[in-house]
Amino acid sequence: ADYDPSFKIGKEKAKVCMTCHGEDGISTIDPYPNLRGQKMGYLISSLKDYQSRQRTSGLAILMQQQADTLSEQDMKDISYYYSVLGTKKEEE
Amino acid sequence: ADYDPSFKIGKEKAKVCMTCHGEDGISTIDPYPNLRGQKMGYLISSLKDYQSRQRTSGLAILMQQQADTLSEQDMKDISYYYSVLGTKKEEE
Repeated sequence: ADYDPSFKIGKEKAKVCMTCHGEDGISTIDPYPNLRGQKMGYLISSLKDYQSRQRTSGLAILMQQQADTLSEQDMKDISYYYSVLGTKKEEE
Repeated sequence: ADYDPSFKIGKEKAKVCMTCHGEDGISTIDPYPNLRGQKMGYLISSLKDYQSRQRTSGLAILMQQQADTLSEQDMKDISYYYSVLGTKKEEE
């Protein structure tokens, strides 16, 4: 993944996610999900659902605010990064 | 985990989840999340959010229907199972 520019771009954009979701994509807090190796399509649709307020519980409010700052390309880049993190694809 | 009754109960209740989320908790379909080793607190609150219609996008509808069939104890048991699956705790 060191030679994968998309992975590097995603990692850079994901820095803001790491406070809650962990440096390695394993969240340090039980109410927050691990993102390491998560499916890219699921991550993109989750971010879109926060942005469009289709996820609305108390815990969702922080993620709504985060998603509001992201472009569609940012969502793709961040989701790509986490989908590769910790998988065999990262070692390539 | 072979000696952990909660793990066995959760596994039994999770059978219905496996069609979409994989026998091993790694989903076979990109729009569906992996559940293997996911945080228990996050899984419980996700299920509750589907049940209370605080997750409402197109993809959420299937999960709303699933969550409707679950008691609070079912949610805890299933979430416990996935939180242990694939982790060191499973090997104990």
